[in-house]
Amino acid sequence: MVVVTEPGVTEKQIEEIIRVLHEHGFDVHRSTGIRQTVLGAIGVQPDFDHRQIQLLTGVAEVLRITEPYKLASRTFKREGSVFDIGGLKIGGNEVVVMAGPCSVESEKQIFSIAESVSKAGAKILRGGAFKPRTSPYAFQGMGEEGLKLMRAAADQYGLKVITEVMDKSQIALVEQYADILQIGARNMQNFTFLRDLGKASKPILLKRGLAATIEEWLMSAEYILSGGNQQVMLCERGIRTFETATRNTMDIGAIPVVQKKSHLPIIADPSHAIGIRDKVIPMARASVAAGADGIIVEVHNDPDHAKSDGAQSLFPDQFSQMMKEVTIIAEAIGRKIA
Amino acid sequence: MVVVTEPGVTEKQIEEIIRVLHEHGFDVHRSTGIRQTVLGAIGVQPDFDHRQIQLLTGVAEVLRITEPYKLASRTFKREGSVFDIGGLKIGGNEVVVMAGPCSVESEKQIFSIAESVSKAGAKILRGGAFKPRTSPYAFQGMGEEGLKLMRAAADQYGLKVITEVMDKSQIALVEQYADILQIGARNMQNFTFLRDLGKASKPILLKRGLAATIEEWLMSAEYILSGGNQQVMLCERGIRTFETATRNTMDIGAIPVVQKKSHLPIIADPSHAIGIRDKVIPMARASVAAGADGIIVEVHNDPDHAKSDGAQSLFPDQFSQMMKEVTIIAEAIGRKIA
Amino acid sequence: MVVVTEPGVTEKQIEEIIRVLHEHGFDVHRSTGIRQTVLGAIGVQPDFDHRQIQLLTGVAEVLRITEPYKLASRTFKREGSVFDIGGLKIGGNEVVVMAGPCSVESEKQIFSIAESVSKAGAKILRGGAFKPRTSPYAFQGMGEEGLKLMRAAADQYGLKVITEVMDKSQIALVEQYADILQIGARNMQNFTFLRDLGKASKPILLKRGLAATIEEWLMSAEYILSGGNQQVMLCERGIRTFETATRNTMDIGAIPVVQKKSHLPIIADPSHAIGIRDKVIPMARASVAAGADGIIVEVHNDPDHAKSDGAQSLFPDQFSQMMKEVTIIAEAIGRKIA
Amino acid sequence: MVVVTEPGVTEKQIEEIIRVLHEHGFDVHRSTGIRQTVLGAIGVQPDFDHRQIQLLTGVAEVLRITEPYKLASRTFKREGSVFDIGGLKIGGNEVVVMAGPCSVESEKQIFSIAESVSKAGAKILRGGAFKPRTSPYAFQGMGEEGLKLMRAAADQYGLKVITEVMDKSQIALVEQYADILQIGARNMQNFTFLRDLGKASKPILLKRGLAATIEEWLMSAEYILSGGNQQVMLCERGIRTFETATRNTMDIGAIPVVQKKSHLPIIADPSHAIGIRDKVIPMARASVAAGADGIIVEVHNDPDHAKSDGAQSLFPDQFSQMMKEVTIIAEAIGRKIA
Repeated sequence: MVVVTEPGVTEKQIEEIIRVLHEHGFDVHRSTGIRQTVLGAIGVQPDFDHRQIQLLTGVAEVLRITEPYKLASRTFKREGSVFDIGGLKIGGNEVVVMAGPCSVESEKQIFSIAESVSKAGAKILRGGAFKPRTSPYAFQGMGEEGLKLMRAAADQYGLKVITEVMDKSQIALVEQYADILQIGARNMQNFTFLRDLGKASKPILLKRGLAATIEEWLMSAEYILSGGNQQVMLCERGIRTFETATRNTMDIGAIPVVQKKSHLPIIADPSHAIGIRDKVIPMARASVAAGADGIIVEVHNDPDHAKSDGAQSLFPDQFSQMMKEVTIIAEAIGRKIA
Repeated sequence: MVVVTEPGVTEKQIEEIIRVLHEHGFDVHRSTGIRQTVLGAIGVQPDFDHRQIQLLTGVAEVLRITEPYKLASRTFKREGSVFDIGGLKIGGNEVVVMAGPCSVESEKQIFSIAESVSKAGAKILRGGAFKPRTSPYAFQGMGEEGLKLMRAAADQYGLKVITEVMDKSQIALVEQYADILQIGARNMQNFTFLRDLGKASKPILLKRGLAATIEEWLMSAEYILSGGNQQVMLCERGIRTFETATRNTMDIGAIPVVQKKSHLPIIADPSHAIGIRDKVIPMARASVAAGADGIIVEVHNDPDHAKSDGAQSLFPDQFSQMMKEVTIIAEAIGRKIA
Repeated sequence: MVVVTEPGVTEKQIEEIIRVLHEHGFDVHRSTGIRQTVLGAIGVQPDFDHRQIQLLTGVAEVLRITEPYKLASRTFKREGSVFDIGGLKIGGNEVVVMAGPCSVESEKQIFSIAESVSKAGAKILRGGAFKPRTSPYAFQGMGEEGLKLMRAAADQYGLKVITEVMDKSQIALVEQYADILQIGARNMQNFTFLRDLGKASKPILLKRGLAATIEEWLMSAEYILSGGNQQVMLCERGIRTFETATRNTMDIGAIPVVQKKSHLPIIADPSHAIGIRDKVIPMARASVAAGADGIIVEVHNDPDHAKSDGAQSLFPDQFSQMMKEVTIIAEAIGRKIA
Repeated sequence: MVVVTEPGVTEKQIEEIIRVLHEHGFDVHRSTGIRQTVLGAIGVQPDFDHRQIQLLTGVAEVLRITEPYKLASRTFKREGSVFDIGGLKIGGNEVVVMAGPCSVESEKQIFSIAESVSKAGAKILRGGAFKPRTSPYAFQGMGEEGLKLMRAAADQYGLKVITEVMDKSQIALVEQYADILQIGARNMQNFTFLRDLGKASKPILLKRGLAATIEEWLMSAEYILSGGNQQVMLCERGIRTFETATRNTMDIGAIPVVQKKSHLPIIADPSHAIGIRDKVIPMARASVAAGADGIIVEVHNDPDHAKSDGAQSLFPDQFSQMMKEVTIIAEAIGRKIA
């Protein structure tokens, strides 16, 4: 923390500020300039509320300097993390593609889609068994039956499974069927849940909250890491801005930013970010071109009759075309599709 | 829903669009203009995904017209709702003041604050017993012991109690001690929880999410109302914008907007919205002046040593001064402080 | 500027960072902590691009500390500025009300409105003679003829005149008729124009840009002040956020923030901020309650047939009612309406 | 425009709404549903303020349907526009690369950079001769001398020239030296200037405003097109959001959105969008992958001593590497670098 004093501050006021900093356990280094005095408050107090200092007389500004996350940061771990999920590597040189429907709807549906996406080159099957819906009357997912179908379809076509876990009560159940647990954007700051996930045995895909800064997102990852689960992947899925032409604004710039700040793999979700089918492919390509370690894309065999999010799901043929394009793009930057 | 076609659309394409609308159960009224044809799709399909129509050939634009909420809207109920909480009316002509610490910390603390705010004119004691914290090492609240202390302090000084409920498991417990259940901004779209609250026996104060539109907020209220709990109050507590000079941007304009759209009482929380003590009072005054049905303000007997949010808590003397000012302001608009 | 190094930084890298800082003219104070070294770079380099340091090897973070504005800051001038405009004081204890139509449309219109607002207690007549319009086919204002009419109407009813100046070529002309020059939100960062205004002989009302931070806004005021014109007033008129229920989001919190940071008077424009008549009055009241030094409100004798912005203009009777309310609110905080 | 009435509306109120719509020149089609009546107001009134209807009794909602722009829309012109700039095509199958320094600083500098970027494959030389700066003490550009140097350097290395025009007074001068006139983000809604550009003889690159929606941006293009200049290119350069980890948030999704809505070429500016060198290349690749018709990138021979924006300028070697990558990416989607 750095404390900048106001120009006309008195020596007595500075001493009082230093006294309060000492009281809170900080070492203080003082730099006296012509216009302002700068106090460096050294020491790690992860939970300190810097507004306590901002209110002291003579303080012009308080700047927080210690990154609030540690385990998630690249200064803590220089090399990018690589997770081995039954032989499939995420976070290394290969770019992983996850694909599937928004919701598991039937045996026929999930097997048909699993076959299509597997043939086109996806390695992980996505699909929801428990759906958080804005309307209480909407389709709520198939529950455990959906998990079983997804597992069976994935096994049949040599795929891994990723699916959403909505609260603590579902963790044990979903771990029986899935290879990766997906955490939705609305749960990104559900701290008690994050702590539960720190005890989970499966890797986590942590979606960015709609209004979360990159720093807050990494802080949420820190929660899971500090709980003991070292396998956390981040997922950019669009943020809320003033622009309404797309469902959200996909922050592609977050991909290189996260890679600089953190060693955790970063996955991109163009389907939820852009929200309408005809723009999903350009955004998937852009994500790979920007350096994402993977993409997660909604594909449906009959999107016009999908029970949810049909409008942003690709047809299987579109997905195949997308795979051809991203394969070349990955090569352009010295990577390859897993 | 209104569907606007592209200028060069063919008759066959229009017929196909109408066919799909019929398939989804809409009545269709057609208006043919020189440049564009407009199709009015009449019928209530609360869960319909309008992007399904947007993707059809020949469609330029799809506009949703039915308000997604019904029970929360003023067209459903013209008169403003008034809730009677043990003789205290919220939502009528009187403006209610809720005050207290961020967290209950000790018997001495909560009794001291309860006495102060009661003397100054507050009618409801606020305070957290379970605290959602960004850091796992931070003070997590006193739990049930805190609830008991708050109830005792409130009873001693003739106050009601409002406190936060963080998940379903806490509802029954908190209902034993509190008069109003507060739902935090991060839980505003926790739909399973909202449904649980629809079965709760106590009134709800629903805080606006950091990135929630007013429409989404009312939709969340609808969830609770449709579950059977008719006593929902809304609470504006700041939204996230590009401006970082304040903790959040307090959307005072939401107060008259909500009052036009909904019959539910609207409360303002200047403490969380602005985030620093010296600006809480102007924002509290502005909230009452804009027509809020109540305000909820953090007050602490010793803010410099508060276990949480001390920097945005008022000193008891400041709170008394604030009460004097808002009393006159309420009268200026023909209301009075409860 | 404060430079925070990365944890594993070498002594050699730190020396190189210090060398570059010296090269740019900064004095450097070094604080060595266990995890990080903090370098305080003292010295005023208002135009220095801190990203130059951010890119150096071993640098984790660069924090700018010197306020980029000086003349506008309250540390430069402790007492709030008060401008005397022909006997009318702005910025002192009195709250000034400016009112009038969006555009001057005719002699009859402007005299009628001037009479109404003067009777109700306004002290300054607002109105546009040159209108920036989004459509090339829209009414563009009456030009100099409009200025003459506004001056005559104001003189008749004992009012001052405020009107917008759109570019340098209009300054000399408008100064002949107006008492205050209003600068629109879109021109807030038109730096060459700001410099021209620094030479103007009349006080300036500088509107906040739609996406401008408070710091950028004060920096724009600094441009005018540094050009020699010391009479700058700021005007909050709403910012752009994700919320679309209102035209803009009025940042009432900016009022106390500006008053803490700057000595310049702050005026609020509820009409443009909220954009629809029935919510203008609550926002006007909130502005005064929050401590604004003045408000500027659109009033029209026949809003349904106004040539621009009729939908956000008050009827004269509504304006009178508003004046009664804000008069009491001003008194509640120890001020009075001018 | 579509007008939705409130549920309890009376027949008389509906008739009054229809009367007002007729008064404003609209044809009205009425659709009567069980809960609501929908009025389709057909007719082109580009400048109509729909808030005038929103305020009428019985009106629940007013939805604008006619796109406010016409000449810029793809419904007006199905085929993408292709501009021929001295043999170089922009907007067709080829992707054009524009590169060069932020500012022209000297003959040696601009010739050195022109040589580098030309060798690497750029076709257009960018560089500023007139610089809008936030500080009055900063380098303001070389003016006409800079234009001459840029023209000479471009001619020497077979490049075209793009440079910024800041106001009307510079148009004639810049047209003598440049092939494309660049309009900065802050001028995007300077409507009088846009009208002047409608009379210019050279193509325009119109940057998106920091807080401008895609619709507003296309509306600004419409201004220029309607003035007679048919050669307008759009340039995405980042928008302002709550995220501060990057200078702006680059809205890559705007690329496919603009291409769906408009026939005008869309160029991407990763340098200004992301604001720091080490993330420019990923964003340049993402832009091409998303389908941009061109990119404009800052390159400097000695960025550490550049007079402006050095921190976001690529070294010539980095630019060469970027060119190799985007060449493959363009091929992946069936295009090629010009």
